[in-house]
Amino acid sequence: MTDRSAIAAAHRSIAPHVRRTPVIGLGGADAAAFGAPGGLWLKLELMQHAGSFKPRGAFARILANRPAPGGMVVAASGGNHGAAVAYAASVLGLSAEIFVPELSTAPKRARIEGFGARLHVGGATYAEALAASQAFAAAHGALEVHAYDMAETIAGQGSFGREFEQQAPDLDTVLVAVGGGGFIAGIAAWYANGAKLVGVEPEACPCLSAARQAGRPVDAAVGGIAADSLGARRIGGLAFAIAQTYVAESVLVPDAAIRAAQQFLWDRLRIAAEPGGATALAALLCGAWRPAPEERVGVPVCGGNLDLSLLA
Amino acid sequence: MTDRSAIAAAHRSIAPHVRRTPVIGLGGADAAAFGAPGGLWLKLELMQHAGSFKPRGAFARILANRPAPGGMVVAASGGNHGAAVAYAASVLGLSAEIFVPELSTAPKRARIEGFGARLHVGGATYAEALAASQAFAAAHGALEVHAYDMAETIAGQGSFGREFEQQAPDLDTVLVAVGGGGFIAGIAAWYANGAKLVGVEPEACPCLSAARQAGRPVDAAVGGIAADSLGARRIGGLAFAIAQTYVAESVLVPDAAIRAAQQFLWDRLRIAAEPGGATALAALLCGAWRPAPEERVGVPVCGGNLDLSLLA
Repeated sequence: MTDRSAIAAAHRSIAPHVRRTPVIGLGGADAAAFGAPGGLWLKLELMQHAGSFKPRGAFARILANRPAPGGMVVAASGGNHGAAVAYAASVLGLSAEIFVPELSTAPKRARIEGFGARLHVGGATYAEALAASQAFAAAHGALEVHAYDMAETIAGQGSFGREFEQQAPDLDTVLVAVGGGGFIAGIAAWYANGAKLVGVEPEACPCLSAARQAGRPVDAAVGGIAADSLGARRIGGLAFAIAQTYVAESVLVPDAAIRAAQQFLWDRLRIAAEPGGATALAALLCGAWRPAPEERVGVPVCGGNLDLSLLA
Repeated sequence: MTDRSAIAAAHRSIAPHVRRTPVIGLGGADAAAFGAPGGLWLKLELMQHAGSFKPRGAFARILANRPAPGGMVVAASGGNHGAAVAYAASVLGLSAEIFVPELSTAPKRARIEGFGARLHVGGATYAEALAASQAFAAAHGALEVHAYDMAETIAGQGSFGREFEQQAPDLDTVLVAVGGGGFIAGIAAWYANGAKLVGVEPEACPCLSAARQAGRPVDAAVGGIAADSLGARRIGGLAFAIAQTYVAESVLVPDAAIRAAQQFLWDRLRIAAEPGGATALAALLCGAWRPAPEERVGVPVCGGNLDLSLLA
């Protein structure tokens, strides 16, 4: 299982290529308005390259298996991971073939193509795009860069937790949005028995909650406004094993709470987050998860690839 | 003249009411793409309450002359200072009367009214709104909160410099957008003979450049896309005295460079800045000001009260 030393090693390898994203700490009435009277620390990972946390895992995977110059990498994605792989390929001198489902949004497709990758659109959801990408990678002997279910990817995402602990050392709890589980798994593996980890999912994309109920990864619904970033049909096996060990709780939020959290982030902090990037905060704002009065809460704002006209 | 001890005292008084805004540091190719190959540190002051740096000065002025509960404060503003005074009044249990010119934008008016202030719209530019506000304050015996030309305001804005130096201790140069001059004066008074200060103005709002040429504050043009935040007709007298002592250079940027900087901040960092908030960075991006190869550059991103549909 991914551990702190694997995460620290991945972090060292990717450090030249990823940004150390900033943290804003809120206290007093300000934090209370966000539902965290004991204090709230937001790590602004939407300012990462390509607009989400995904380059951490993408670089970790690719650098550990680096193709020769001009070689090909292949990924399937709702959009953010695809943009990250496309970005990493452009920096490392590789070509990228990115498979996205029909539900992927225009801003995400534009980012992928903006980094020079070839875009393949097909399938209703991420799961179908994944199958197409795997067939393509096998046919071309290319390096697959899975969005979440690879140890290297999870170790790369864990670098977020390592930074967050350095920047906000005394957090009691970290709330993390869950799609395929790679992000929360990396962060949970870093904190291990330190800060408590809480997973937050849209009611319309509940694959971690479904797996916790079943005791194993099972298919779940994929829908709602955050499906383009959190719409994995089934939690990753590696991620689930880590989650079962280190994630204390899992809560669900309705789409309306996600939309309200996006608006609140803009109104109060001038942060323009995509639905998946506002999902963890939504749990605090709508009361789906409530901290104790003195509890110090950390939340990644993990993606910003949205259509701004929806916030305007 | 405002000095470090006055700024530190103002900072202590306002600290319970203002956010310590985060700093993102960029290096390597990332910083080079922004025109600062020696490194770039952006302080994200658009995440301050009310969406700009203005609450620092507003709280400093009001707390130093605090009216009795229910008392009235009066301000004139292109919009950001008005929103800040309205916010401060709401927090401190005061009523606020805010005077804005006709060029003030809808998002700024909405912020002012959203904090419960009474909005007075009139006059073509800030200068006329200021005259109306002063008459109103005199008639009502209310506390005036000038947007820039008061020692308390300048000391409050200086708290930005104090924080920035703590967060990014080794800056060689800080580029600051200039409207009436309160912000750059406060920051320059903090750094004094430390980091070099460079003022950046839109070509269409050049009141600092005009004053430097004349050797004294003189009327200048007010126009272009940043007039709603940088559109002072004449630099403040207190600010100019500080600028003459501690601001090394002053450069101008065209509106097209400001718009491009807004787009660049969104594309690369998912930061949605208003024109005035992107003006200092525009000088780096368009080459109006060029650092030496190793020069470490700091830039406030100082406002985010914009119509998002213009970025969408």
